[in-house]
Amino acid sequence: MTSSSSGLPRVGVGTDVHAFAAEGSDRPMRVAGLDWPGERGLEGHSDADVVAHACCDALFSAAGIGDVGTQFGTSQPQWAGAAGVVLLAEAARLVRAAGFEIGNVAVQLVGNRPRLGARRAEAETALSAACGAPVSLSATTSDGLGLTGRGEGVAAIATALVVPRP
Amino acid sequence: MTSSSSGLPRVGVGTDVHAFAAEGSDRPMRVAGLDWPGERGLEGHSDADVVAHACCDALFSAAGIGDVGTQFGTSQPQWAGAAGVVLLAEAARLVRAAGFEIGNVAVQLVGNRPRLGARRAEAETALSAACGAPVSLSATTSDGLGLTGRGEGVAAIATALVVPRP
Amino acid sequence: MTSSSSGLPRVGVGTDVHAFAAEGSDRPMRVAGLDWPGERGLEGHSDADVVAHACCDALFSAAGIGDVGTQFGTSQPQWAGAAGVVLLAEAARLVRAAGFEIGNVAVQLVGNRPRLGARRAEAETALSAACGAPVSLSATTSDGLGLTGRGEGVAAIATALVVPRP
Repeated sequence: MTSSSSGLPRVGVGTDVHAFAAEGSDRPMRVAGLDWPGERGLEGHSDADVVAHACCDALFSAAGIGDVGTQFGTSQPQWAGAAGVVLLAEAARLVRAAGFEIGNVAVQLVGNRPRLGARRAEAETALSAACGAPVSLSATTSDGLGLTGRGEGVAAIATALVVPRP
Repeated sequence: MTSSSSGLPRVGVGTDVHAFAAEGSDRPMRVAGLDWPGERGLEGHSDADVVAHACCDALFSAAGIGDVGTQFGTSQPQWAGAAGVVLLAEAARLVRAAGFEIGNVAVQLVGNRPRLGARRAEAETALSAACGAPVSLSATTSDGLGLTGRGEGVAAIATALVVPRP
Repeated sequence: MTSSSSGLPRVGVGTDVHAFAAEGSDRPMRVAGLDWPGERGLEGHSDADVVAHACCDALFSAAGIGDVGTQFGTSQPQWAGAAGVVLLAEAARLVRAAGFEIGNVAVQLVGNRPRLGARRAEAETALSAACGAPVSLSATTSDGLGLTGRGEGVAAIATALVVPRP
């Protein structure tokens, strides 16, 4: 919006939260582009992939082209129920169509479950493939405190860097 | 602080939270540089514009020159009661005076109200004008969980990129 | 992971939360690389320095090399009980060993205590020395809301920028 900023990289931020489904629900858990059999699922109209959604919002935020709600909300019914990685691929396409190269996305999962453990690399591969750029994934808990510590839900926070194409 | 970092862009982060005013309060809501008639206001000594305040803190954080508390706190009485966008304009001035060009600021509103809806572009224009650089604004909810989900308050999280001037 | 991203800076994000120790506990408080005599301590297997831990996670996130859990967890017993700034120095070493130059780290403390006050510069010096790059430190409260507002614990959120070495 100001010519003085032309050419500089731009950063963005995105967070997302989804509640755990009720005990006994048959919602599957899908987080970070992976299925987690045996884990209690998360509620949501979509697949509730908080990690993928936070990545989408960080990309939109960096490019200044809205957010998951405006890009994939009820006015865009073709995305209803879409998997998080499908949305992430589309978000990356929209950011590039808006004139930006994607540098990277970094996302942190905050919650008690799932434990990424040995599947972190697998998740990063799925997310990076969707994005067409490096996506790093990390995880932490909130020491038993807050909505994630009490096990009410799972949160994710992401940042992204994009660069205007010359 | 290290010569090896000279010339590289710098990133910063800032968050803010304000509680909703009591039911029946006559506090107006001012968020993201806009008035929101009919919405319940937020508490605060200032105008409680969480979005603008998070942007200020992200800019100060990137430049390494303190925060809203140290720059606009009780020891600087001239800023008491100032509007969020006035503080944002002053924050941008201070960051430039410290030797940085502002690349961009990106901020996400987390809460049930206000719904940005059709006013997102209007808010981005107000924030970008105050900052003299692109400010992107997005929004999300926290799925009914936590302080924002329970409607106790509104949160905002911002990131910013600045570059040392040659 | 994609050649198109070569050479661009990369950003990362990290958050951490630690609960306050029980009233009467003799846990010392160590936050942002400093001791805070007279303050109630934070729980944790380590020194519970939320600020230093968030910085470590932001650096790992930017470089895409895991997180505090994978780098300093129970499978790496040599780090058990290590001070936050010792971990931060090691995190910075690992990021450089992975081929990145560190641009900066920016971290915000969210909580009622400790009040950084006049010790902000001292803390920034300690953190920057550990990191070998500029670390800016800011602080805010959450207006009496949420886990930090209720005084259950302290949170920190950090971002970092790194650049692949040519």
